[in-house]
Amino acid sequence: MTKYVFAPFALLAIASAPEAAPSPAEIVSSAPATAWQDIAQEDLLEMTLANGSVVTIQLVHEFAPVHVANIRKLVAAHFWDGTSINRVQENYVVQWGDATEKKALPAGLGTAPASDYVRPLNGLGFLPLPYPDPYARRVGHGHGWPIATDGKQAWLPHCFGMIGVGRNLAPDTGNGAELYVVNGHAPRHLDRNLAVVGRVIDGISALTTLPRGTGALGFYEKPEERTFITSIKAGSRDRWQNLRIESPSFAAYSLARANRHDAFFNVPAGGADICNVPVPIRKLSVQAGGQ
Amino acid sequence: MTKYVFAPFALLAIASAPEAAPSPAEIVSSAPATAWQDIAQEDLLEMTLANGSVVTIQLVHEFAPVHVANIRKLVAAHFWDGTSINRVQENYVVQWGDATEKKALPAGLGTAPASDYVRPLNGLGFLPLPYPDPYARRVGHGHGWPIATDGKQAWLPHCFGMIGVGRNLAPDTGNGAELYVVNGHAPRHLDRNLAVVGRVIDGISALTTLPRGTGALGFYEKPEERTFITSIKAGSRDRWQNLRIESPSFAAYSLARANRHDAFFNVPAGGADICNVPVPIRKLSVQAGGQ
Repeated sequence: MTKYVFAPFALLAIASAPEAAPSPAEIVSSAPATAWQDIAQEDLLEMTLANGSVVTIQLVHEFAPVHVANIRKLVAAHFWDGTSINRVQENYVVQWGDATEKKALPAGLGTAPASDYVRPLNGLGFLPLPYPDPYARRVGHGHGWPIATDGKQAWLPHCFGMIGVGRNLAPDTGNGAELYVVNGHAPRHLDRNLAVVGRVIDGISALTTLPRGTGALGFYEKPEERTFITSIKAGSRDRWQNLRIESPSFAAYSLARANRHDAFFNVPAGGADICNVPVPIRKLSVQAGGQ
Repeated sequence: MTKYVFAPFALLAIASAPEAAPSPAEIVSSAPATAWQDIAQEDLLEMTLANGSVVTIQLVHEFAPVHVANIRKLVAAHFWDGTSINRVQENYVVQWGDATEKKALPAGLGTAPASDYVRPLNGLGFLPLPYPDPYARRVGHGHGWPIATDGKQAWLPHCFGMIGVGRNLAPDTGNGAELYVVNGHAPRHLDRNLAVVGRVIDGISALTTLPRGTGALGFYEKPEERTFITSIKAGSRDRWQNLRIESPSFAAYSLARANRHDAFFNVPAGGADICNVPVPIRKLSVQAGGQ
């Protein structure tokens, strides 16, 4: 055995031994068109950085209505255009907003209450995962989102890629102008303590590869370290879809995430953490609108 | 309220309201010298990248003995000097080794068996966390490491920063020459399917900020995209310590990670995921050897 391993995981993807069960990725790629649903353009935002990178964001409309309404107003007012990425903390969050703290806010921002951090579980079409969770009584999916619940109230967990609203010490002080995205292992202790308002659905690497800030909590110490945000605009140039959580394809995908029987795996886990069962999202070209 | 939030988390660190409970970081920073123990120099490695960045690695000696012995032989033979980082997959792993697949391996590498992926729980001084886990019957800490167990066998979970050995499809094909580090949310489905051999204890940002590979599974498509590894050497220029998991400070830290009562938090989680209770590690300067 002189040849040693170069690309162990690549082999997994390439191999399609007939006896092996399909991988989660294979299940998703073979899902029928009916298993996918469009993400409304009105829930999409495009953030363009000074280096030309584009980050596509999906706002949630089932949670944090006051915060999300504020964000829509801030986008409409072009508030973030010319602001910057001010904080990159390893394995925690990337945060952006107006570092000068002097930019005028648009009129009509609502006071964003802590009650916005949770909502009733009812009405979300909640499909629980059958695995225990260290943070919540139950976790699962609803309306295309990961959800955690105590059985009565529901909230969005701080998974990788989820976006939240920064605030001051008092819980009603986050107005939506200061946003962060999780760039590492899910800091679920933040759940119910901050408003989660959406997720990055494409281009997150433009944020996760930025130099880490050397100041306290990953803030940049010098203004010139900040990456400028050219704009955050409503809508996306592309058409996006998520796999319907009610589809047989999602059920098979979710089961496979917890029980890997594809060729590489010898010991299926028998469980999965909510942040390791992300809702699959795909991009369709705008031209393919009829698909 | 015209002033809005710029640095919500910074305020958390700065604020020291007398009524608030100490944060996990405050508990760690006030731990007495007796709560810390040295990490043996023989378990440390320094990886230096072509750009001068240094990544400090701690090998485990309680797990994966055949794989770890191979790694020590590979270090002694300077095997990785001149090899490269070949794969950076977003929210998964960064992987390195000999991209040419032609470099001679040192003599005497042992065949690394799948039995190396687990070991008996007995003998690890296991201290369980009192929270459920979706992947294992019980999780906790032992000998300064995070541990997952089925009650009989124990293994190291794939938390952020943990290092594993790449392999081919057959479980006994990872010899230690191809290594990866977790750069995002813990891919715990890999637990017991690969040998975890250590962790990055410092400098991980040199790896996590690298451009993501655009090939399948995050492999770089062009050789010039790879970052070269100048060397991986035994030992560290610095002295490192971990917080003893048997210390009252660790117990208080662990409890606080799951139950945040410091000023910023309104709803303590009441639980924590094993990967969110990392064992605190600190650097002492070599000059301060007598501390």
